[in-house]
Amino acid sequence: MIHICPSILSADFSRLAEEIKDVESKGADCIHLDMMDGHFVPNLTFGVPIIAALRKHVSIPFDAHLMVEHPDVYVDGLAKAGVQYVTVHQEACPHLDSTLQHIRSAGMKCGVALNPATPVSSLSCVAAQLDMILIMSVNPGFGGQKFIPYSLDKIREARALLDSVGNTEAVVEVDGGVNADTVQSVKEAGATFLVAGSAVFGAADRAAAIAALR
Amino acid sequence: MIHICPSILSADFSRLAEEIKDVESKGADCIHLDMMDGHFVPNLTFGVPIIAALRKHVSIPFDAHLMVEHPDVYVDGLAKAGVQYVTVHQEACPHLDSTLQHIRSAGMKCGVALNPATPVSSLSCVAAQLDMILIMSVNPGFGGQKFIPYSLDKIREARALLDSVGNTEAVVEVDGGVNADTVQSVKEAGATFLVAGSAVFGAADRAAAIAALR
Amino acid sequence: MIHICPSILSADFSRLAEEIKDVESKGADCIHLDMMDGHFVPNLTFGVPIIAALRKHVSIPFDAHLMVEHPDVYVDGLAKAGVQYVTVHQEACPHLDSTLQHIRSAGMKCGVALNPATPVSSLSCVAAQLDMILIMSVNPGFGGQKFIPYSLDKIREARALLDSVGNTEAVVEVDGGVNADTVQSVKEAGATFLVAGSAVFGAADRAAAIAALR
Amino acid sequence: MIHICPSILSADFSRLAEEIKDVESKGADCIHLDMMDGHFVPNLTFGVPIIAALRKHVSIPFDAHLMVEHPDVYVDGLAKAGVQYVTVHQEACPHLDSTLQHIRSAGMKCGVALNPATPVSSLSCVAAQLDMILIMSVNPGFGGQKFIPYSLDKIREARALLDSVGNTEAVVEVDGGVNADTVQSVKEAGATFLVAGSAVFGAADRAAAIAALR
Amino acid sequence: MIHICPSILSADFSRLAEEIKDVESKGADCIHLDMMDGHFVPNLTFGVPIIAALRKHVSIPFDAHLMVEHPDVYVDGLAKAGVQYVTVHQEACPHLDSTLQHIRSAGMKCGVALNPATPVSSLSCVAAQLDMILIMSVNPGFGGQKFIPYSLDKIREARALLDSVGNTEAVVEVDGGVNADTVQSVKEAGATFLVAGSAVFGAADRAAAIAALR
Amino acid sequence: MIHICPSILSADFSRLAEEIKDVESKGADCIHLDMMDGHFVPNLTFGVPIIAALRKHVSIPFDAHLMVEHPDVYVDGLAKAGVQYVTVHQEACPHLDSTLQHIRSAGMKCGVALNPATPVSSLSCVAAQLDMILIMSVNPGFGGQKFIPYSLDKIREARALLDSVGNTEAVVEVDGGVNADTVQSVKEAGATFLVAGSAVFGAADRAAAIAALR
Repeated sequence: MIHICPSILSADFSRLAEEIKDVESKGADCIHLDMMDGHFVPNLTFGVPIIAALRKHVSIPFDAHLMVEHPDVYVDGLAKAGVQYVTVHQEACPHLDSTLQHIRSAGMKCGVALNPATPVSSLSCVAAQLDMILIMSVNPGFGGQKFIPYSLDKIREARALLDSVGNTEAVVEVDGGVNADTVQSVKEAGATFLVAGSAVFGAADRAAAIAALR
Repeated sequence: MIHICPSILSADFSRLAEEIKDVESKGADCIHLDMMDGHFVPNLTFGVPIIAALRKHVSIPFDAHLMVEHPDVYVDGLAKAGVQYVTVHQEACPHLDSTLQHIRSAGMKCGVALNPATPVSSLSCVAAQLDMILIMSVNPGFGGQKFIPYSLDKIREARALLDSVGNTEAVVEVDGGVNADTVQSVKEAGATFLVAGSAVFGAADRAAAIAALR
Repeated sequence: MIHICPSILSADFSRLAEEIKDVESKGADCIHLDMMDGHFVPNLTFGVPIIAALRKHVSIPFDAHLMVEHPDVYVDGLAKAGVQYVTVHQEACPHLDSTLQHIRSAGMKCGVALNPATPVSSLSCVAAQLDMILIMSVNPGFGGQKFIPYSLDKIREARALLDSVGNTEAVVEVDGGVNADTVQSVKEAGATFLVAGSAVFGAADRAAAIAALR
Repeated sequence: MIHICPSILSADFSRLAEEIKDVESKGADCIHLDMMDGHFVPNLTFGVPIIAALRKHVSIPFDAHLMVEHPDVYVDGLAKAGVQYVTVHQEACPHLDSTLQHIRSAGMKCGVALNPATPVSSLSCVAAQLDMILIMSVNPGFGGQKFIPYSLDKIREARALLDSVGNTEAVVEVDGGVNADTVQSVKEAGATFLVAGSAVFGAADRAAAIAALR
Repeated sequence: MIHICPSILSADFSRLAEEIKDVESKGADCIHLDMMDGHFVPNLTFGVPIIAALRKHVSIPFDAHLMVEHPDVYVDGLAKAGVQYVTVHQEACPHLDSTLQHIRSAGMKCGVALNPATPVSSLSCVAAQLDMILIMSVNPGFGGQKFIPYSLDKIREARALLDSVGNTEAVVEVDGGVNADTVQSVKEAGATFLVAGSAVFGAADRAAAIAALR
Repeated sequence: MIHICPSILSADFSRLAEEIKDVESKGADCIHLDMMDGHFVPNLTFGVPIIAALRKHVSIPFDAHLMVEHPDVYVDGLAKAGVQYVTVHQEACPHLDSTLQHIRSAGMKCGVALNPATPVSSLSCVAAQLDMILIMSVNPGFGGQKFIPYSLDKIREARALLDSVGNTEAVVEVDGGVNADTVQSVKEAGATFLVAGSAVFGAADRAAAIAALR
């Protein structure tokens, strides 16, 4: 089942409660939260204090994507803030299995995100314990990018990897450049969680935009 | 002249526009913005994208306090976002003179913040070119702290250092634990920019709280 | 041939000479030495000075597992201290071939350890020159963990990789949660060097414990 | 078509203009430039200012091999200096796709270098967009090394990977220990860009040396 | 009152319980514990697990000197291990006041160590809250050094700084090259805690050695 | 006695032998060598291999200014290359006394450079053992800067510090923006080693330029 996950990176940060309530009412399935620390990626967005302030305003799940170094230090705070999904980057986690255990033991679902250049095979050891693989279809933290076409192969590989270990419940999420032009192909490739930024928050009719992506 | 600078760390992050408009209308002199990157300090708060979204909602100055490593990467973004004061940490800037020149050349006023343990004398070379010295009266990035009493000596030393180089226009700001109990002593010591968090945003009557601090 | 390698992490650090002499006399095949630096892993255990002090007390080989960043700086010291096996982490060695050459040129046998999440295929280039692959069956440096079941697949893959390049002399070692419940499966998977901590040092009858593992 | 790429690491640094003009006149196809920063590798050689000074003296392409951390900071300078090929290390680039896009958008050809221990499969995602794969046949930055024989397999794998994605225009370059003894095997394996240091600059008859390698 | 603090760096690491019991019985006033992490200093010695194993064997205080980066991560473990004094390095602590508060809140006494080149004035802000200033009279972590004569001036300055803020209970400790030749001068300069390595553990008659230093 | 030290940063890197022979013949007293690693400063210039290639071409001293992190790794190479003066940055050396001992034990003279914002008092402990204090009158590694006027105070303070400890043989060097407009004031302030870049190498008449500075 397709989940549309609007990223608040494209929302109006001056009135986030209104923004996320609005997309919830228009059909969003979860709220995608792009934490960036200015070290793993060249941009600093927001952290746990902002996420915590948003939780009470909507009931749909929070899907936090941690583009940060040493993500373990934020895990307990995210759990306390009421986050449902925590996704960390393979490239930032030398002790990835431990980080995933940490997320799960804190009561949340765990995912791993892959930068465009990182092969899906890097997740072969942990595939069975994942709730999500996040395929980055742009480079995280860099502005103004287009959907990278070879991401479609990676979505297929991620889906195949999960299936090959019997983990059919885990989902493949895609983030970056998902819009009317690209959405059909990413769904066909096997992604069911679709992160959308300006395609939703920037739309004149957000309900229509969400419905169209779905 | 005393400036009251409410820190949005204590505001409701889900409706920042309302929050800062409210304190502006209640007499705040500027908005204090605590950027933290989870590296220089053990907390990640927010960065340029959030600051940029707030600028149009108030007309009082923005006073950004960068508790981050390599702050130079954010300077141009802060200028574009409409920030007036940029304060960096002495402990994070091996090339401090260059960073200060960068801030000024981007059209903003520049300050240097000192952690509690850092002597004021560390600023002796750059005192003449500063617009502000920020004396931290708690340790930045750590929660639940009280005003450190020896900060009063540092406020006096900072004021004396600025005066000794003829820089009477530069101000001394104090951040951490400023409230009804401590405000008189910090003003007597020579601070004129007073950062207040919960003392303003947490007050039942914010106008009264600001007036009382002033 | 099965080697039982008691790890001194579970020994009494106040009388290490006695401890290692005891396990040698009870049938241990080598002494496993877990160097941790508090950077690669979140724990700091011991380094070369302690290892050097132990060498004269037993004659069985020393098997040093370096859970440290930049392990090259310790290699010459380990050789001088009389160590036989030096195992470094794939995740800590951007110049892994060079590090392995360094260990061998210092007259020691070389191994590479893999964190649970790291695929065995990451060693495909260096497999022919290894003396050992160490499969971590818990996350190194974190306490209180259980044997990770998917490690069995990795032991099989490591054995297969070594055989595929004709390196039948190289061994597969397993470290973490090896005890009466798990030992049979790790041996069947192809591991011949078995690191045991509390399963040996914590046993009432260490000779029996070692015999049972063997 | 075979390209002979003399590395100025073996030239006389006190008269580089003469040196590169000489090898150009003797048949060199491009100039190989080994930037090292003393961080990614344990040696510091030279950077953009030196490269920029050399450009006007020859007309053959410049092939810069960046053995540095965070290579993105040098890309624009290299473009301005007139460099044609920029090769970065897989091990140094957590955002490799972004770095490659940066190089191409600056008007240069892009390559990725692999340390001896790094599998060719790590480039599977980006293979289609590469202009070059550089197989290191010694460990970069360490002195006095011999050609690593297993590099031949990696050259074949790199060639096969490029061909498998239809990228037949991209080339495989080899760097380290290429000389009269090894050149035939590297060419047979599929390398067409051959970096040569002392084998060219140290030869009594450089024209003959280049011809022999070709 | 003079305290003689033998450093276990010069003890026999294979039988530490015996060694520390011996020096306790011969008159030592506390046990000096040199934690090194191979990052702040170029040596890795030992960490909390070893210290914890020693506590029950003697009743004199444990005086831990942390030559490590990010010492805060070890503070709670040291408290649990039964350590009385924790000394951190000024050069390793950008948030020194916070680290000192952490140590005290864990129920231990706190000190700051200064590398030879670091001025005593760097401690002016925190002098009032210290229990100890440790003047390094050799460079920590490097072997085979002699007592640096200018350390005597620093001992005097440290004593004067503590007295100037009314902190007469705090002590000055000296570490490095303290022996029969230097002990008189360091005591005259105002040090009362004397770290001794080989001067005690290497002495034929340890009781006499301790008495002589005292 | 005034020493004019042309910096090869302003020379033609394609024919360095000619360039340095030329300035030697025109009266230069030593050759200033600006090593930058792209980490301590945002530029990468050159390292030991280039310096080593130049030594035989002139007989005047080599004065190497290391704008690099962990400068100790280059010290032995610089000694072997025939360098006379090695200057490291206070901001890059947590173990500054050890680094200075290393330089001297390798047979070279040692200096410490101070960034514009770094107080001269940071050198109070090591002043007696220095051969040189280098006052940066621009920020190292950043282009296109003017002489910072407050550097004159620092030159005076550096001279006074050296004299106060009886180290009258040590010299004060100044680097950055030294030209016809500023040279008189820096000499009056007490600097005797004057680094000049374009003021010498960029002059139509280099002999006249050197004479004018002198």
